[in-house]
Amino acid sequence: MDTEIITIGDELITGHTVNTNAALIARYVTDLGFSVRYQTSVGDSLESMEEAFRLALKRARLVITTGGLGPTHDDITKKAIVRLFKRNLIFHQEILDDIRARFAKRGVEMPAINQNQALLPQGATLFPNKHGSAVGLCFAEEGRIFISLPGVPFEADQIMVDEVMPYLRGIQTAQATRIMKLRTTGIYESKLADKISHDLKLEPGVRLAYLPSYSGVDLRIMATAENAEAAGDKALRLVRYLEDTCGRYIYGRDDDSLEAVVGQLLADNDKTLVVAESCTGGELGMLITSVSGSSNYFLGGVIAYANDVKIEQLGVDAAILEEHGAVSEPCAIAMAVGCRKLLKSSYALSITGIAGPAGGANDKPVGTTYIGLASAHASYARKFNFGARRDTGRSRASYAALELLRREILDIK
Amino acid sequence: MDTEIITIGDELITGHTVNTNAALIARYVTDLGFSVRYQTSVGDSLESMEEAFRLALKRARLVITTGGLGPTHDDITKKAIVRLFKRNLIFHQEILDDIRARFAKRGVEMPAINQNQALLPQGATLFPNKHGSAVGLCFAEEGRIFISLPGVPFEADQIMVDEVMPYLRGIQTAQATRIMKLRTTGIYESKLADKISHDLKLEPGVRLAYLPSYSGVDLRIMATAENAEAAGDKALRLVRYLEDTCGRYIYGRDDDSLEAVVGQLLADNDKTLVVAESCTGGELGMLITSVSGSSNYFLGGVIAYANDVKIEQLGVDAAILEEHGAVSEPCAIAMAVGCRKLLKSSYALSITGIAGPAGGANDKPVGTTYIGLASAHASYARKFNFGARRDTGRSRASYAALELLRREILDIK
Repeated sequence: MDTEIITIGDELITGHTVNTNAALIARYVTDLGFSVRYQTSVGDSLESMEEAFRLALKRARLVITTGGLGPTHDDITKKAIVRLFKRNLIFHQEILDDIRARFAKRGVEMPAINQNQALLPQGATLFPNKHGSAVGLCFAEEGRIFISLPGVPFEADQIMVDEVMPYLRGIQTAQATRIMKLRTTGIYESKLADKISHDLKLEPGVRLAYLPSYSGVDLRIMATAENAEAAGDKALRLVRYLEDTCGRYIYGRDDDSLEAVVGQLLADNDKTLVVAESCTGGELGMLITSVSGSSNYFLGGVIAYANDVKIEQLGVDAAILEEHGAVSEPCAIAMAVGCRKLLKSSYALSITGIAGPAGGANDKPVGTTYIGLASAHASYARKFNFGARRDTGRSRASYAALELLRREILDIK
Repeated sequence: MDTEIITIGDELITGHTVNTNAALIARYVTDLGFSVRYQTSVGDSLESMEEAFRLALKRARLVITTGGLGPTHDDITKKAIVRLFKRNLIFHQEILDDIRARFAKRGVEMPAINQNQALLPQGATLFPNKHGSAVGLCFAEEGRIFISLPGVPFEADQIMVDEVMPYLRGIQTAQATRIMKLRTTGIYESKLADKISHDLKLEPGVRLAYLPSYSGVDLRIMATAENAEAAGDKALRLVRYLEDTCGRYIYGRDDDSLEAVVGQLLADNDKTLVVAESCTGGELGMLITSVSGSSNYFLGGVIAYANDVKIEQLGVDAAILEEHGAVSEPCAIAMAVGCRKLLKSSYALSITGIAGPAGGANDKPVGTTYIGLASAHASYARKFNFGARRDTGRSRASYAALELLRREILDIK
């Protein structure tokens, strides 16, 4: 079923907020087999909103919007809906009671402005919002479905999962789509494409996309067929080909993250991990602990931003810093070895680099980074250059550190 | 000048990648005074692409696309352009030489697949790409401008800044727009709106938007007038009103970040900072060190994920952990005090909480977090609840810690 997602807000249209809702919703409905053809963003303007709604209802049978359902004056999605579907607004006492109770729970009185959130278009199916005061709205008429969700990402997410998905599952789609993702790291896009495309002939209805990000390049397989089983078979044939061609770079599938895969390897082997971070300032630790249950294998670490912290906490020899500098192979190794000893773990990872934009030199340009690893059996460091951008360079360094550990544990040379 | 941004890629339309390019480009052109009316996303399909291009050229005078200019088979934007503008592809030797040199610099041979990136539509102005092999394309005809950029975000960014912005600056726009942003934290959206809307009358051509995020609520002011000075005056009148109404919650303007504002306060006062992080696992350190120059005031920290690390490194009394647990006021205070002593700083911030989804209890539900602060004069902790979501809860905790320090330094009670 052709689908269009419309995200609403001046903050989106002017670029002051990155549009995460479109991706969130697209992902959910795609996985159900709906085909998203268009995503459109418009500002908080009644005129643009109405035009976008009308066009979407013409070219799609399912339309999902987010944004503009809040209590403030710029929230006018309801107004556009009322005009488009020619409905009146109806007051819902139970919604008002619910909003009041929500504020009371936080120990504050409901601001008067929130009252208008209990006024809702006639005839709409209401989707409860567990985390906020704006309920979701759904209209189905003339073979078209129109769903309106709040713009706060985790509120939209909750309503999608608890309300919209069960509702949409009840609707039959003509074709089945199977989407799979293979996640690679340690190889760049065109090199990977070269390896893959050499002997590749795609079956009809199968698409392969290369999706580069800071953690690596994802391979996305989308297979369409008359039913779910046939779509799955098509997708799996391509997956097997890809595994044969570039298996050593593949660390996971679909929602696997490198941090969760490495965490599982540690847990499976009863090993523990600590980190010693300089230029990344805690990002590697954050990444590792973003996995629920990471306390089973992650003990902690030292953010050794100043050289004194490297010397006094991690026991890095001052002579190493003088002779080689903080961004050097010996310093990375000493940081990892010292951290492992200090915090008593199986493995330690260290990162020291020039994140920039300042601090580069001819022999060590901005982006130069050493990643160290220490275990009971080995200690070594690898040199990388993650480029001149502070934010992306630091992310890349954190993922490269995890990949170094993955290869160490799996003994991939 | 009405503008439409079209972002291309199956990864966007299926939601597997969040669309950061649309925001990036919208922000640049909005700041120049162009009005983005629509953002559209389509998949790697020639048909959708052509339809979106045609519609955009009808309803906008400036169209900017990203994506589909890479070397792999799913990169077909050039094909759509060639059809739409009825152009031939021309081979550019100098582009091929440049791509080859780019690979040589990394010590690898150019994959054969990259050759097709030197084939470019006739008559296009070429915008060089410093970071990648896909050049930007620009067509101007019949009062319409059509610009095509690569999809890799930092490549699109570089070409926008170095090529597209200077080009667009040369084009007159009829009206001037002034956008300003006031950044608030420590107050929720509807409470802020209540305070503000009480006596507020917006002038014609002035819009105010509330943009909640994990760091707080931004107030975005957009003022349009016949010239830049008049637009600026209108915006400033609203800014003054907002500062009068809710000044204590405003920590910065426009691109100010809480981490940079707090960093500047530390630098101005010759103070240093360290962090002791449990549930955030390094996120607070990462946030602080995302500011270039943070080594002037940030020394480092301890990621004390395991209780042993809290006891052995930070000197937290084991009796505190036994009696009150790791997520408690005394533990947060002991972590901050211990970390400040260990790393010899002016201030220490600590965070200990239940990030979830597991680990909650009746008296300490998931999201319960204590943030501690230690200085030469004071040590205390505040209790928060940042909700049940691991990712957003951790981000909120990191920002709340920075706000605690900002209020301590500025003596805001």
